[in-house]
Amino acid sequence: MSRKPTTPGPRDERGVLAARILDAARQAFAETGWAGTTIRAVARAADVDPALVYHYFDSKEGLLDAATNPPARWLENVARTWTAPVDDLGEALLRLMLGAWADEETGRVLRAVLQTAAHEPATREKLRRVVEGQLIGVSSLTDDERSVRSGLIASQIMGLAMMRYVWKIEPVASMTDDELVAAVAPNLQRYVSGNLDQ
Amino acid sequence: MSRKPTTPGPRDERGVLAARILDAARQAFAETGWAGTTIRAVARAADVDPALVYHYFDSKEGLLDAATNPPARWLENVARTWTAPVDDLGEALLRLMLGAWADEETGRVLRAVLQTAAHEPATREKLRRVVEGQLIGVSSLTDDERSVRSGLIASQIMGLAMMRYVWKIEPVASMTDDELVAAVAPNLQRYVSGNLDQ
Repeated sequence: MSRKPTTPGPRDERGVLAARILDAARQAFAETGWAGTTIRAVARAADVDPALVYHYFDSKEGLLDAATNPPARWLENVARTWTAPVDDLGEALLRLMLGAWADEETGRVLRAVLQTAAHEPATREKLRRVVEGQLIGVSSLTDDERSVRSGLIASQIMGLAMMRYVWKIEPVASMTDDELVAAVAPNLQRYVSGNLDQ
Repeated sequence: MSRKPTTPGPRDERGVLAARILDAARQAFAETGWAGTTIRAVARAADVDPALVYHYFDSKEGLLDAATNPPARWLENVARTWTAPVDDLGEALLRLMLGAWADEETGRVLRAVLQTAAHEPATREKLRRVVEGQLIGVSSLTDDERSVRSGLIASQIMGLAMMRYVWKIEPVASMTDDELVAAVAPNLQRYVSGNLDQ
């Protein structure tokens, strides 16, 4: 064998170290928020020199931006959800959220987003784009309707995520996916396609 | 005049200083979270000596506890909401939340609670008690039902509060109270008294 595939070359090493830094950064932003997180603490947790964090990510803003980019497989799931029939969209959006938090890496990204969006404009902008995108596949809506309905859907889905995964308040934290779908999906469906003026 | 009513005596002075410290503490906990807040920074913002903060509140935990106690007038509104007829409870709980955030002091307390509950067990416990209490006036429910329904109501109400007041994402942030009641109260009412198994 002329090549050991498990030995990282310089390019692979960069990938491994960057992933370790991003892992530590997601943890730190989720635990201590935007103001409480320092490059120095992230570097210590990732066991690298702070200078390397600056070299890879340029600034604390750059580090948060990279740490809150969703994994590609999640974006594929999002795109697939958009093509669900309108009448199934309430359940589809809820199952998308439950699946995202069940995926370890995506869950960490979402946690970091929710815990920093209040204070970091770039993260809030990402959150806003996720909120806006939810009904992108529903062509029958005007822009204003889409925007109101998407916001209401997000208010329910993100509140459920806070209760279940961030604050971990029972019994919502321990209900099964199917119990939650039965209880919550009809409410989401009303925001998707029901009458909201009464 | 033998007495100038605007001159604070020692007892009044303590009240004035404590209120100023609590104001600064709510602001700091809401802006920088549990981990990012220091007694020193709160003391600086309140223009008092850090020793006075320790003297009044004993510790950072004690300061957060005092800063997240809801004003008495809010507790009265909560108690009044509990007596609403079951069929009106969805709207009553939503209007309670909207009124609480419209009240400057209560809004600051709620913001501090939402921004620290993820990391501070005592605050999370307060949040849990608020969640649990919502259907306390509905005598027809078993304890398990009450607990599930209360958790779902909280997931919607707190998600709406995050969207509207903490993340300030449009159009939810600018919708009128009446628009929100028309759109959201029926969903809350389903959690109060609807069938959640389908």
